[in-house]
Amino acid sequence: GQAPESTDFANYFCTYAYLYHQKDMLEDHKRTGAYYNAVLQNRRQFHGKVVLDVGTGSGILAIFAAKAGAKKVYAVEATDMAKTARKLVEHNKFGDVIEVIQGTIETIELPEKVDVVISEWMGYFLLRESMLDSVLLARDKFMKPDGAMYPSHARMFMAPIHTEVGSRRNTEFQGSMEGWAEFIQEMQSFYQVDLECLNDTFRQEQREYYLQTAQWCDVHPSQLLGPGTPFKSYDLGKVTIEQIKAGIEEEFEMDVVEGGPVHAFCGWFDVAFRGSDAHPADTPVTLTTAPDPTGATHWGQQSFYVVPPVECSPGDMLKASIKVDRRKDNHRLLRVEMGVSIDGQPGSSRQLAWNIE
Amino acid sequence: GQAPESTDFANYFCTYAYLYHQKDMLEDHKRTGAYYNAVLQNRRQFHGKVVLDVGTGSGILAIFAAKAGAKKVYAVEATDMAKTARKLVEHNKFGDVIEVIQGTIETIELPEKVDVVISEWMGYFLLRESMLDSVLLARDKFMKPDGAMYPSHARMFMAPIHTEVGSRRNTEFQGSMEGWAEFIQEMQSFYQVDLECLNDTFRQEQREYYLQTAQWCDVHPSQLLGPGTPFKSYDLGKVTIEQIKAGIEEEFEMDVVEGGPVHAFCGWFDVAFRGSDAHPADTPVTLTTAPDPTGATHWGQQSFYVVPPVECSPGDMLKASIKVDRRKDNHRLLRVEMGVSIDGQPGSSRQLAWNIE
Ligand SMILES: Nc1ncnc2c1ncn2[C@@H]1O[C@H](CSCC[C@H](N)C(=O)O)[C@@H](O)[C@H]1O
Ligand SMILES: Nc1ncnc2c1ncn2[C@@H]1O[C@H](CSCC[C@H](N)C(=O)O)[C@@H](O)[C@H]1O
Repeated sequence: GQAPESTDFANYFCTYAYLYHQKDMLEDHKRTGAYYNAVLQNRRQFHGKVVLDVGTGSGILAIFAAKAGAKKVYAVEATDMAKTARKLVEHNKFGDVIEVIQGTIETIELPEKVDVVISEWMGYFLLRESMLDSVLLARDKFMKPDGAMYPSHARMFMAPIHTEVGSRRNTEFQGSMEGWAEFIQEMQSFYQVDLECLNDTFRQEQREYYLQTAQWCDVHPSQLLGPGTPFKSYDLGKVTIEQIKAGIEEEFEMDVVEGGPVHAFCGWFDVAFRGSDAHPADTPVTLTTAPDPTGATHWGQQSFYVVPPVECSPGDMLKASIKVDRRKDNHRLLRVEMGVSIDGQPGSSRQLAWNIE
Repeated sequence: GQAPESTDFANYFCTYAYLYHQKDMLEDHKRTGAYYNAVLQNRRQFHGKVVLDVGTGSGILAIFAAKAGAKKVYAVEATDMAKTARKLVEHNKFGDVIEVIQGTIETIELPEKVDVVISEWMGYFLLRESMLDSVLLARDKFMKPDGAMYPSHARMFMAPIHTEVGSRRNTEFQGSMEGWAEFIQEMQSFYQVDLECLNDTFRQEQREYYLQTAQWCDVHPSQLLGPGTPFKSYDLGKVTIEQIKAGIEEEFEMDVVEGGPVHAFCGWFDVAFRGSDAHPADTPVTLTTAPDPTGATHWGQQSFYVVPPVECSPGDMLKASIKVDRRKDNHRLLRVEMGVSIDGQPGSSRQLAWNIE
C-alpha cells in the first residue's frame, strides 16, 4: 500500500483530527443509530469474531463491535484522533478487546485475518472523499474469503426537484457580474487600466462557483417532482477498487410525476447492512440519506442546479445519462456530467456539468 | 532556490489562481491606490529602469511601473493567474515592456539585475503568508546593490481596544460546551458509551477555536483605548531572510489613555515607500491598515481577545512582551504569545496566546 501524500494529509485528514468534526458525525443519530442497530441487532455476526474498523475516528464503531461480543477489534485511524479513540476505549473498559492502531490502512499490518470489515466511509453523493478505496483495500488485504462487509451494499439516487435556490444563486451570479462591471469602471477611472478583456474569464469563474457547483441541501419530500431513480448500485463484497476508480457511466430514467419546471436534480445514497452470503445478517438494516420530513443526515443531499429549469408536464419521463469522475486537481473531489432530455421531445436535450467540492 | 512543496501549492497558492480573489485585492483602493501613488508620484525612480514585480497576480503593479516609464518589467507569478496577467498586459499595450514569467521566484532566472523590486506581499498582521521570504530572496538574487524596494519599510502596531466581540465569542464557547454536555448524555442513553473522559479535550479544542484564534476585524478608532505602539519595524532593504524566519521577540509599552476594561489587543501594520538611500523617493507614500473611520483595507486589523478583560484605569501603562512565530504545522500561519501587566501593579501579569489562521 502507498502512504497518502502530504497534501492529502494536510487537506483531507486534518479535519478528522478535530473532536468537533467527530461529534458532528456522532450526533447524526440516523447515521450512528443505523450502525448501532446493524451491529447490535446482529450480535451473532460479531460474537467471538475478529473485526476491523477502517477509520475508527472516535472509536465508536469498534466499541459497538466489542459490545456485540467481538473477540478482537482492530481499530485503525490515520489521524491523532487515534489517541482520543484509545482514551475512549480504555475509559469504557474495552481495552482488552479493541486495539487502536494509528496509521493509514494502506501502510499498517495486522497479525491475523478478520471476519468483519466495518467502516463509515461514505462522503457527499456517496463517493466524495474516495475513502471507499481504502475500505476495499482493507477487504482485499485483511478479510477472510467468507468475511462480511458492514455496510455490504450501496446505492446512488437521482430525482428531479423543485427549489428556489437555483434561481437565487442565478440572481447572486448576476449581481456578482454587475459588481464586476462597476469594478472595471473604477479600475479604468482610478488607474487607467482596462480590464474588459477579463470579462469572460470572470464570468466563467463565477458561473462555475454559483451554478456549476453542487450544493449541500436538506430537501423536503414535497419538493420531489418524482421518485428517486437508483442509477448505480454496489455490492461492497465484490466491487473492485479499479471499478470504483474508473468512475460511473450510466443511463437511467426519471419520472416527472408532478410536472416541472425541474429546477435541480437531487442526488443521495443509501447503504445496507446485510452481511455476506456465508454470514447473512439476521436483521438487515438500511441507512438512507433520502429527503426526509424529519430532516437530513449530516450528508444532506446534493443539489445540481439546472438554470434555466427544464419545463416538464406531469407524466413526462426524463432520459438521462450520467458520468461521475474524480477530479484531476484533487482525487477526493468529484465532477458530475449529465445529459437529460424529455422522452419523445426531440430538441429538449441538455448537457449539464457540476463540481462537487 | 527551492520550489514550494505540493501542499503549499495546493493550500496557499490555489486561492490566488481565482480572479475573484485578485479582484478583492484590486478593489481595495487604499491598497491599490497607495501602490499607484508610490509608483506614479515617483516616476523618476521608474523611468528607464528595470523593475521586478514579485507575485504580479493580475499584473497590476507591473502595469503601473510600465506606465511610469520603466524600460523593462519582469512580472513573476507562480499560479495560472500569470496567463491572465499576460492577457491584461497585452490588452493594455505594455507587451513590449512587461515580460510575464510563470513560476515561483525561488526557481526562475532573469537575464539581468534590476533597479527596483516591487511587491505586494503583506498578509494579515503583516507576516501571515510568509511571502516576505520570497521578496527578500528576490532582492538578494536579482537587485542591484543600490536598487530600491517598493515598499521600503514596514511596521507592526498593537493597541488596547474595547470590543463586545470577545465576550460574545466567550458566550458562544459556553454554548458549545453546553451542547457537548447534552451530546454526551445522548451518547450514553442511546448507545451506552461514556464520553466524559473527552470533556477536557473538547473544551481545549473549543477554547482555541473561539478565544485563542485572532479574528479579522474592522475596528473603529473610537474603540481604541490608547494609541497604537509600533513594536517592530523593518528596513526592507536591509533585513535578512534569517531575521524574518527567526520571528519576533520584543518588549514594549501601551498607554491605556481611556482606561479599561481592555477586551482585546488590536494589531495592524503599515508600509512606507521611500525608495533607497541611493534613490530616495521624491514623494514618499505610506499605506496604513490602522483603524480608520472610513473602513478597513481588506487586511482589516487582527483582534486578540483577552477573556476575562484586563481592568485598567485611565492613564495606566501596560508593559508587554510579544513573541510572533511561524506555526510548526504550517509555516505560513502564525502563533502570537503576549505577556502583559499593568505597570506598578504586581500580580496583574497575564500570559496570553493566539493562533493566526
Ligand atoms: N486510509 C485511511 N486510513 C486510516 N484512517 C482513515 C483512512 N481514510 C480515512 N480515515 C479516517 O476515517 C475516519 C472516517 S469518519 C468515521 C469515523 C468513525 N468510524 C465514525 O463512524 O464515527 C476519519 O477519522 C478519517 O481520519
Ligand atoms: N514565491 C512566489 N513566487 C511567485 N509568485 C508568488 C510567490 N509567492 C506568492 N506569489 C504570488 O504573489 C501574489 C501576491 S498578491 C498580489 C498580487 C498583485 N501584485 C497585486 O498587487 O494586486 C499572488 O498572486 C501569489 O500567487
